[in-house]
Amino acid sequence: MAEENTVFIGKKPAMNYVLAVVTQFNSGSNEVIVKARGRSISRAVDVAEIVRNRFIQDAKVKDIQISTEELTGEEGRKVNVSSIEIFMTK
Amino acid sequence: MAEENTVFIGKKPAMNYVLAVVTQFNSGSNEVIVKARGRSISRAVDVAEIVRNRFIQDAKVKDIQISTEELTGEEGRKVNVSSIEIFMTK
Repeated sequence: MAEENTVFIGKKPAMNYVLAVVTQFNSGSNEVIVKARGRSISRAVDVAEIVRNRFIQDAKVKDIQISTEELTGEEGRKVNVSSIEIFMTK
Repeated sequence: MAEENTVFIGKKPAMNYVLAVVTQFNSGSNEVIVKARGRSISRAVDVAEIVRNRFIQDAKVKDIQISTEELTGEEGRKVNVSSIEIFMTK
């Protein structure tokens, strides 16, 4: 899966990312990965649900992976952060 | 899947729910469902990750389902809320 098919979810309103996913599909991608870390995970699920319920009816969630990433915070402290990857296809 | 094997994630610290999941497994369950709605979805992912990384090494995430639930809010207003179910087995 190429990096350009991945939409990273941040702290903006969900509709910004919905638009990014819809644009990916409409420009010819058959697969889009919605990826998020930490508190943005809830928003990633919102984005996937809004895309398939409201915009691209034949889009499906093919697979969902969760994992833990170790980030280095301030003062070199290690912090574990959960992440999610939602694989959408149409 | 019986209701008693489901752990509903709310707004308490993640470790409370980690303990609930670990207790389910240790009392003989082979499968536990971690379920959450809205902003608690991120915490549900944290709970599943902490359980398998720190407490029950042979626990696996077998499947993850996301969906949209329509709730009736104040004044009868309909609100769509995303939800997640994480199916864990050992």
